[in-house]
Amino acid sequence: MSRTTRAERLTSNTADMDAVVIVNGQNQFLDTTYWYLTELFSGTFEGGIAVVRDGELNTIVSPLEAEGASLGKGTCHVYDNREHRNGILKELLDGCKNVGFNIGSATYAGVEYVRKTADITPVDATKGIEQTVAVKDEKEIEVMRKACKITSTVAGEIPEILKKGMTEKEAASEIDRRMRAYGGEGNAFETIAAFGPNSSMPHHSPTDRKLEPGDTALFDFGSKYSMYCSDLTRTVFFGEPPEVLKRAYEVVREAQEEGFLCYKDGASAADADIRAREIIDAGEFRGKMIHTFGHGLGMNIHEAISVYSKSEQILHEGNVVSAEPGIYLPGIGGIRIEDTCLVKKNGAERLTSFDKSMIIV
Amino acid sequence: MSRTTRAERLTSNTADMDAVVIVNGQNQFLDTTYWYLTELFSGTFEGGIAVVRDGELNTIVSPLEAEGASLGKGTCHVYDNREHRNGILKELLDGCKNVGFNIGSATYAGVEYVRKTADITPVDATKGIEQTVAVKDEKEIEVMRKACKITSTVAGEIPEILKKGMTEKEAASEIDRRMRAYGGEGNAFETIAAFGPNSSMPHHSPTDRKLEPGDTALFDFGSKYSMYCSDLTRTVFFGEPPEVLKRAYEVVREAQEEGFLCYKDGASAADADIRAREIIDAGEFRGKMIHTFGHGLGMNIHEAISVYSKSEQILHEGNVVSAEPGIYLPGIGGIRIEDTCLVKKNGAERLTSFDKSMIIV
Repeated sequence: MSRTTRAERLTSNTADMDAVVIVNGQNQFLDTTYWYLTELFSGTFEGGIAVVRDGELNTIVSPLEAEGASLGKGTCHVYDNREHRNGILKELLDGCKNVGFNIGSATYAGVEYVRKTADITPVDATKGIEQTVAVKDEKEIEVMRKACKITSTVAGEIPEILKKGMTEKEAASEIDRRMRAYGGEGNAFETIAAFGPNSSMPHHSPTDRKLEPGDTALFDFGSKYSMYCSDLTRTVFFGEPPEVLKRAYEVVREAQEEGFLCYKDGASAADADIRAREIIDAGEFRGKMIHTFGHGLGMNIHEAISVYSKSEQILHEGNVVSAEPGIYLPGIGGIRIEDTCLVKKNGAERLTSFDKSMIIV
Repeated sequence: MSRTTRAERLTSNTADMDAVVIVNGQNQFLDTTYWYLTELFSGTFEGGIAVVRDGELNTIVSPLEAEGASLGKGTCHVYDNREHRNGILKELLDGCKNVGFNIGSATYAGVEYVRKTADITPVDATKGIEQTVAVKDEKEIEVMRKACKITSTVAGEIPEILKKGMTEKEAASEIDRRMRAYGGEGNAFETIAAFGPNSSMPHHSPTDRKLEPGDTALFDFGSKYSMYCSDLTRTVFFGEPPEVLKRAYEVVREAQEEGFLCYKDGASAADADIRAREIIDAGEFRGKMIHTFGHGLGMNIHEAISVYSKSEQILHEGNVVSAEPGIYLPGIGGIRIEDTCLVKKNGAERLTSFDKSMIIV
C-alpha cells in the first residue's frame, strides 16, 4: 500500500488548482470529504473548514469542536471568534488564486465566505475529489469490512426472521434492529423489504403488505459502521414460488457471479454490466434488468463510480463497488442479488457474504 | 387561519427581492423549503427547483419526478433535457435582478447554475424564508400532532421498557422500534438514552452502560411523520435514586411548566428561558441548566427560533418550539423534561404529552 497521505493524493489529483477547500455547512449540509481528509470517524464539525495545499492538510474549527478535531490528521486551528477565523483562512490561502471546491457538496454561503475572505476564485474540484476518495486505503477497507460483516450476519438470519403474515414494515424494522444489535451505527439507507409482486419494483418502500406462501421476499439493506456504508441484497422464497421466479433466480445468480468476475484493477467499469446483461438478455428474461449493475460506495451509499454499459471509467485497486443484477417481472415478482465488492489487482473480493443458493423457507 | 398561500407569504417576507429560488442538490443536499412550498410530504426531488415570484410558485423537475411533482402546489414544469430546463428557468426569471436563495441550504453548484443561466444576482433570502417557515399552518400542525402522538405513546411505555441490566443502546433501539411500529417514519434525530451519571451530559450517545438500581434513565427522542419532527424528553428513576435528584426533578418540572406558560403570541422568545432559569437558579441548583430552554422545529429538528435569555425574537401564533429545561449534576445524573409546544393567541398547547410526575420504576 502506498505511503502517500490522503491530502497528498488530493493535491496530485487537482494539479491545476492552488489549493482545495472543503467547507461544512450546518445540519445535514456536511461534506464527508472533511472526515475523509482528517481520518476521523465521528464528530459533527458544523462550519468546519479543511484546506489542502501542496499535500498539506490544515483544519479550522470552533472551540466547541477543538477536542475531537485535534485527534484528526493535519494541523488543527481553533478560532476564538470570526475575525480570528478570517485571519487563519487568509493566511492558509495566501497567494492562492484558483481554489477548488466540492461545489455539489458545499453550500453557497460556505464558498462565498471563503471567496470573499481570502480573495480567491472558486473552481470546481469535484472530479479530483471523487478520484481521490474512490480509492480506499487499508483503514477504510477495515471499517467497510466491519460494516459488511454486520450486514452479512443479518442476511444469514433472514430465513429465521420470516413469519407468515408479517408485514414488509415489520421485517424491515427487524432487520434494522439486528444490524444495530450487531454493532451497526445506523442504516446506510432505508431498508427495502418487498414481498410478492412488490419485489418487481427495485426501489419499493416497505408497506403493510403481509407475507404469504409463495411470495418472493427481497431485502436490500446496509449498515453504517464508523461512518462507512455496506450494501447487500438477498432474495429468498417463502414457500414454493412460481416456476418462472425459480428460473429467474438461477439466471440472476449466474449474472452476479459473472459480472463480479469482471471486477479488477484496470478493467472498464462497463465490463461487468455488459457481461451480466448478456446473460440475462440471452433467454426469456431479455430486457428485464432495468437498472445498472453497480455503483461505488464508501462514506456515501452512492459514490462516483457508475457500473453501466456505457461507462468510460476504469476500475482501480481499492475501489469499492456493488454488484447487483436483477430481473423484474411486473405483477409477479423480482429477484436481485447484491454484494459489496473490493477491487483488487487481479480480481475482486466480496466484502459481504451470504448463502447465494436458492432458498425456499 | 389565513387564506394566503405559502408562496404569497414568502413573497411578502422577501419584499426587497424580485424572486426567491430554492435549488435542491443531490443526495442529502436537499432543502426542506422545496417540500414546504409544494406542500408535498414525500419524494426525493434531487435537482428540483422551485421559483417563487409575486406570490406564484413554479417548479422544475426531471421526467423521473414528474408523477410525484404534479401532485404538489404550483405549476410544475417537466424538462426533457438540460437545454429545455435552462429555457424554462430563464423564462420564469425573465426581468429579475436580485434573486433570493437559501444560501445555507443550497449548494454552490446550484446557485451558480441559476445565476449563469438566468443572468441574475444571488442575494441572501435566509431570513425571509425562516420567517415564513416558522409559522405553521393547519396542514403542518396536523402532521406535527401525529408525529408528537407517536412519540408520546412511546414515552408512556418507558416504565415497561426498562429492565435491569439492559444497555442504553438496547433501550434506544427499543424506543426506535416502537416509534416505527406506531406509524413513525424514522427518527427525527438519534435517540438519546442515558443511564445514571451519563444523564448529566445533555448530548450523550447511547453506550453499553447497563441499567442499575438507583439510576436516572433519561430519554430524548422524536419520530418523523410525513417529513415533520417531534421532540420529547422524559426522565424516570429505576429504583430509589439519590435524594438530590428527586429534588432536582421537582425543580425541573416546575421550571418546565412556568417556562411553558410564557409561550404565547407576541411574547419575547427570551421570556420562557429567563423564567425557567430563575426557578432553577433560585436554590441549590444554581447554574446547573447548561443549555437554552428551547428551539423551533418543523421539518428540521432545529429551526430558526432560539429560546434563550438574550433572544430578540418575538413568538407568533403557529410557531412550534420545544420547552426543555434541565439540571445536570456531573458524576450523579441529570434531569430534563421536554415537550413540543404550539404557540397560540393567548398561550401555548403541548403537542406531546406524558405523565410528568416523578416515577420510580
